[in-house]
This record gives sequence, C-alpha cells and structure tokens, in this order.
Amino acid sequence: MPNRKDYFVGVDLGGTSVRALVVDSDYKVLSSGKSRTKSRSKPRVVIAEIAGLIHEVIETAGVRRNDVRAALVGAPGAVDPHRGIVKEAPNLGWTDVPLAAELRNQVRVQVMVDNDVNVGVIGEHALGAGKGAKNLLGIFVGTGIGGAILIDGKLFEGSRGGAGEIGHTVLAVDGPLCGCGHRGCAEALASRTAMERDVRAAIKSGRKSVVPKIMKKKNHPRMTSSIIASALKKNDSVMRDVLKRAEYYLGILAANAVNLLDPDCIVIGGGIVERLGEDFVGPIRSTAGKYFLHGDSQRRVRIVPGKLGDQAGSLGAVVLARQRLGI
Amino acid sequence: MPNRKDYFVGVDLGGTSVRALVVDSDYKVLSSGKSRTKSRSKPRVVIAEIAGLIHEVIETAGVRRNDVRAALVGAPGAVDPHRGIVKEAPNLGWTDVPLAAELRNQVRVQVMVDNDVNVGVIGEHALGAGKGAKNLLGIFVGTGIGGAILIDGKLFEGSRGGAGEIGHTVLAVDGPLCGCGHRGCAEALASRTAMERDVRAAIKSGRKSVVPKIMKKKNHPRMTSSIIASALKKNDSVMRDVLKRAEYYLGILAANAVNLLDPDCIVIGGGIVERLGEDFVGPIRSTAGKYFLHGDSQRRVRIVPGKLGDQAGSLGAVVLARQRLGI
Repeated sequence: MPNRKDYFVGVDLGGTSVRALVVDSDYKVLSSGKSRTKSRSKPRVVIAEIAGLIHEVIETAGVRRNDVRAALVGAPGAVDPHRGIVKEAPNLGWTDVPLAAELRNQVRVQVMVDNDVNVGVIGEHALGAGKGAKNLLGIFVGTGIGGAILIDGKLFEGSRGGAGEIGHTVLAVDGPLCGCGHRGCAEALASRTAMERDVRAAIKSGRKSVVPKIMKKKNHPRMTSSIIASALKKNDSVMRDVLKRAEYYLGILAANAVNLLDPDCIVIGGGIVERLGEDFVGPIRSTAGKYFLHGDSQRRVRIVPGKLGDQAGSLGAVVLARQRLGI
Repeated sequence: MPNRKDYFVGVDLGGTSVRALVVDSDYKVLSSGKSRTKSRSKPRVVIAEIAGLIHEVIETAGVRRNDVRAALVGAPGAVDPHRGIVKEAPNLGWTDVPLAAELRNQVRVQVMVDNDVNVGVIGEHALGAGKGAKNLLGIFVGTGIGGAILIDGKLFEGSRGGAGEIGHTVLAVDGPLCGCGHRGCAEALASRTAMERDVRAAIKSGRKSVVPKIMKKKNHPRMTSSIIASALKKNDSVMRDVLKRAEYYLGILAANAVNLLDPDCIVIGGGIVERLGEDFVGPIRSTAGKYFLHGDSQRRVRIVPGKLGDQAGSLGAVVLARQRLGI
C-alpha cells in the first residue's frame, strides 16, 4: 500500500530529449521538466543530464528526496530490466550501459529501467486511452514503429524480454528496405522515416509539395510530426497520399495483430497521433475492420488514439515502478 | 488429483474424418479409432458417427463408461468452449451446432468442445515437440493454416476466444486471394490449398509435373500431403519450387511472430509435417532466422516439427479436458 508521503519519478529518455516528472501516490503530477540530449553524446554525459533533470523536478515538486520511492527510466532500445542495463539503443549509440546503477549513484534514489514503448503503453493502459482493457496492444508510430503487449493487464515480455517488436512485422515481402536490414517491415512502410522517404521520392519524381519549404522555414532537417501536420493543413497532396498509404499499412498491421491476439483494445500512440489524433487513427481503424477474420466479434475491438501525449512514457514509467515495487 | 480408474476420451473432428482415443490417467493410449465423415452431411449424421466411434473406442479399451470422466472434441472452426457450441465450421458446413449437448445425450459422458488447432498445439506442448515450453506458438499447415498460442503453458484465447488465427496474417499486400476474402494472407501463400493452386498454375504455364499423374493414380481430386511427398520423391521440380516458396513464407510468418511474441518454442504441425518432418521445417527455420530482429537471442527459439502426428489433436483433447476438470 502506498503512503501519502510516497513519491515517484518517471523519466522518458528519447533520442533527442529527456522528459521527467514527479507524481504523488494518486498519480497527481507535481512537477515536470524536459531537457535536450545531444544525440551521440557519451552515455556519461547523457546520464549526468538525466540526473540533473531528476534533481530539478524533485526540487520543483517540493518533496524530500527520502520520500521518493523510485525513479524508472524508459529507454529507447533493448533493455535488461532485471539488471537495469540498456543493452542496445541505436538512436543513442549505446551498448550495454548500466544506466540504473550509474544514475542511482548520482541521484541517490532507487532507479529502474525499461523500454520506452513498454512504459508508454503501460501509461496509456493505466491512465489514458486503454483504461480497463484486459488484453491490450500498443503501437507507437515515430521515427520507428514500436509496440508492447499487455495480457491480463500486465506487460507481456516474452521468453527473453523481446516481445512487442510489431514494427518488424513483414507486411510486404520484397518491399522497401528497413533500418533492421530486412525488406517490407511495417516500420519501412509506415513510420515517419518511411513517410519522409516517400515524400522525397514523390518530389524527385516531379510532384510538387510544400514539405521542403516548411522544413526550411522550421529549420529542421527531418520531417517531424509538426511538419506533417503543417503540410496537411496546407492540403499538400503529396503529404496526403503518403500519409494515406502509411495509414493503410498500419490498418493491416493492426488487423494482423487482432487476428493473432484478439485483444480488446489497440492504442495507437506516438508523435503523429499527438498531432493528428483521430484524423490519423480513423483510417487505420477503417482498414483494420476490412481485414478482420471474425468480422462481427472483432469489430468490438477498440482501436483508439493515445490520450497522454508526450507524457505517456514518463507517466507509464511511474506506473511500472509502482507495479514492480508492489505499492 | 486423478484416480487410477479415471479415463478420458479425446476426439479430433476433421473435415473428412474423425479420430478418437481413450487414455488412462498416465496418458497411456488404451484404444484408438478413425471413421470417415461425409463432408456436408447434416450435423445430426456426423454427431451420430462421432457417438458411434466413442462407444467403439470405450468398448475396445475395456473400460467402464462410468469411469470415463469426460470426452473433449476438437472441431475445425470457431467454437464457444463455455457453451460447447460449434459456432462456425466452414469445412463441415456447420453454424451454431450444440455439439457438446447433443453428443452427451448419446454417449452419456460429459462432453466438452474446443478448436482443433488449439487441442493439437496443447497436445504437442504436453506430450510432444513442445514439452517444457513456457510460451509456445503452434502453426498447423493443412488445407488452411491455423495457430494457437500458449502463454505460461496455458492456452491464450484472447478477449473473445478468437486468438491464434495466424493464417490470416497479411504477408504480401495485394498478394493472391485468400479463402477469407482478403489478399496476401499466409494461408493464401503457404497452405496446401495455395500450393495446389501454384502447382496447377505452373502446369498451365507449360511446366511439366508428375503431380496430376500421381493424383490420378491415387484417385484423389486434391493435392494431399501424401501426393506432395510422392512428387518430391520423384524429384518433381514444380513441386520442389512451389514447396520452397511456401516454406519461405512460413519462415517469414514465424519470424513475424517471434518479433511480436518472443516465444521459446514454435511447433510446426499438420499433414505436410507428418509426411516431410525436418525436410519441411528446416527451410522454415532457416528463413525465420534471417528475419529475426534480435538475432542472437532469438536464435535460441526452438522451431520444431510436431511429434504426435495425427494423434496431436485427440491427445491434446484429453489434456485440455483434464486441465478444465482440474484432474
């Protein structure tokens, strides 16, 4: 049982930024903060930044460090939750980093580690769009496509902690090359990276698009979710077509998962969902519905946009920390 | 706890035959039998046949009917295990048949019902190739492709009892038409039905194959597993190419499932596996290995041929019956 004086820190470590927050035992957010990480910095540097941010949010929250029961960090890659190690985080350039131990030395609070998508999905299940679901699948669309499965409300990690990699479902044998080295993965068809590739290809083939102008104006080298949203607002036909295609593949991906797992809820999250919400998820739901095997019963599966936005990860981190501590 | 005098009947109801067996509390098979079912017979007729077969195996086993604790029937389609109803069995032409109740009236033994692939996979887990696996996926390749998932050793049915339909994973968007009405499902690419279609197409395009001759000789209108095995023995190049292609798709299907579920074991079963065994499963394992996301750790997943042959279903049926009764 939690004590009124129990506080928890949730950290969402991304490739370009870290977010952290402090909650009380009712999940009331007492403070939150964000810090940019320089990608390709040494782990030592990034860990010091995370420690600084944790100090900051604890101070802002006005709680005593002794009352903070734990901090849990969601990291973008393969982790060993039992040893608190980030095994492989390509976006950070990390291999076998003992994140929990090193961070604990600096913040003097118990530190736990898990995968960023796992905690995001746990957050949406406990506090967001997936509330009350028994069996839930989360699909997070960003530069890649991540996933996590909850069975009977608990994270299903598989036999070696590797479950949930739905982005590496081959949907189109001999399709476009994926970052993982294979062809036709969902991630190579429907991630933001895939959409950017398709927009560039359309422009190269002679079609007109406002995307390059918006990217220049926003001074951003990559097609972010905000750039996608701006281009759609300007009714850019290339962006519209590329997005439609990605939504179609995501619909098939969702249907494949429903046919295999029969969950009661699929939460679609990530940056694009934060920007576009139901406009993005509606077409995914509609395509999925066409590919269900047991049409009528499966139509009862809820396919919904995430509700927690960029706090899904840090809120999910505190939920998982409490599950692990049993308080 | 089982009693020495507890006996169980397992029934595997297929589209063309019914198999039944009686086991004692050590799973020793005391008797077994098989009966042909006329496809498209009325449910009443088929149920009478099943009842006759159950009477026969109980008599042959030399056990008293009062000592038979239960019979469980694995049926080829969607079932409601709680009400003992076969909801939809396309190969039998059945809709909403109260199989458990009607069969119980005839055999005067408690009757339970589940899906045929579920019981086959449970059988391989308890008594066959999947022994000791914590998280197991079964993929059964026949006229269709069925699947079942065991999590923590127990059947995972999903939120509406529909989990496991791995045959309706789209692997090739815009691929060949599937029996379910969609395109590019694994079943439309790698089932025996898909292979037969591909062999016929190759012959039509001018390639030579011994398959039609073997079918004529065996007087069988469909390309059964035994016909596939005969053609391979004669080194038929069309059959070899078609099988290779199916194995390739099954390898990708297995890899997709490993990336999503991270099981410790995948059992490949069904008629083709009974005939070809490791010759069929080896190439599937090899392709899957190329598509794993976390190569090294996932290479530890066992991808193995089923061991129980045509008894997988009936043996799994008695295992599930005992699980349900808790004895």
